[in-house]
Amino acid sequence: MKKVNIKESAIVAVSRFYLSLLGFFLKGKFTVEDLEKTIGNFIDKSKTSYISSIDEDGFPNIKAMLSPSDRDGIKTIYFSTNASSLRVSQYRKNPKASIYFCDQRFFRGVMLKGEIEVLDDGESKRRIWQDGDTLYYPKGVDDPDYCVLRFTSKSGRYYSNMKSESFEL
Amino acid sequence: MKKVNIKESAIVAVSRFYLSLLGFFLKGKFTVEDLEKTIGNFIDKSKTSYISSIDEDGFPNIKAMLSPSDRDGIKTIYFSTNASSLRVSQYRKNPKASIYFCDQRFFRGVMLKGEIEVLDDGESKRRIWQDGDTLYYPKGVDDPDYCVLRFTSKSGRYYSNMKSESFEL
Repeated sequence: MKKVNIKESAIVAVSRFYLSLLGFFLKGKFTVEDLEKTIGNFIDKSKTSYISSIDEDGFPNIKAMLSPSDRDGIKTIYFSTNASSLRVSQYRKNPKASIYFCDQRFFRGVMLKGEIEVLDDGESKRRIWQDGDTLYYPKGVDDPDYCVLRFTSKSGRYYSNMKSESFEL
Repeated sequence: MKKVNIKESAIVAVSRFYLSLLGFFLKGKFTVEDLEKTIGNFIDKSKTSYISSIDEDGFPNIKAMLSPSDRDGIKTIYFSTNASSLRVSQYRKNPKASIYFCDQRFFRGVMLKGEIEVLDDGESKRRIWQDGDTLYYPKGVDDPDYCVLRFTSKSGRYYSNMKSESFEL
């Protein structure tokens, strides 16, 4: 197993961030490639995700979730969750959603906006199942209370240094 | 200036939390008094707030904000923000909102749901102005880009130990 040098990783992450910012200031806007790298890296380093839905009275709801179980670039992002949760019943009625990741140290944040599908078929559940998940779903991958949220991003907004920039995906 | 013993404060905070949980299990539900204490304390200790609005296409949006500038119990909570921000224009059109506070160490979270009013009169601005705010609003309390978000809670949801409980306010 490769030993990760944490100090070195931090320097690489910070350098990537400033290179991406430099690219942004030189070009005036982010390219899709910049976004994939910067935001993908951001998501992978986040321990907590914040997820938003709309309830039956039209109020936006927020909840903290564990980090995504899997992702395909920054366009498709998978979360595991309890099928019995309030959030799942809300997404079944209204798929509009946003997810947010925050780096409090550097005052950075990214919001992705799109739609969430609730998947409860065996294939989707096995796709993102991870060993430690029995902690949350004691009956394993076939636990009827385990399901998948598949988020598809349409656009987003990146916050950094008290400035923000919207982007389409 | 009183020197705060951080270790002692942490013990007090954890004890309060478990006493509140004990109260909850004994009585079966939170009383308004429990909520005021537990959630008020939670808010005061949070360095970051997450705030949600609904955009013109009906999507929920999320953004991290600094902690509230002031609060009156847990019913009325004040934030300072940029009058020019996207969030302010969204709340002027649709006041439905939620705010969220998260304690990642103990896997606890609280969502408050209600409405936000945008206040830009001098009295409201002076009410919550804090010395360090010139960092964000260089022209001071009369900076035209400084305004107040007054959030009024109607209900909420408290997450702890992978369980959740809704409450009315």
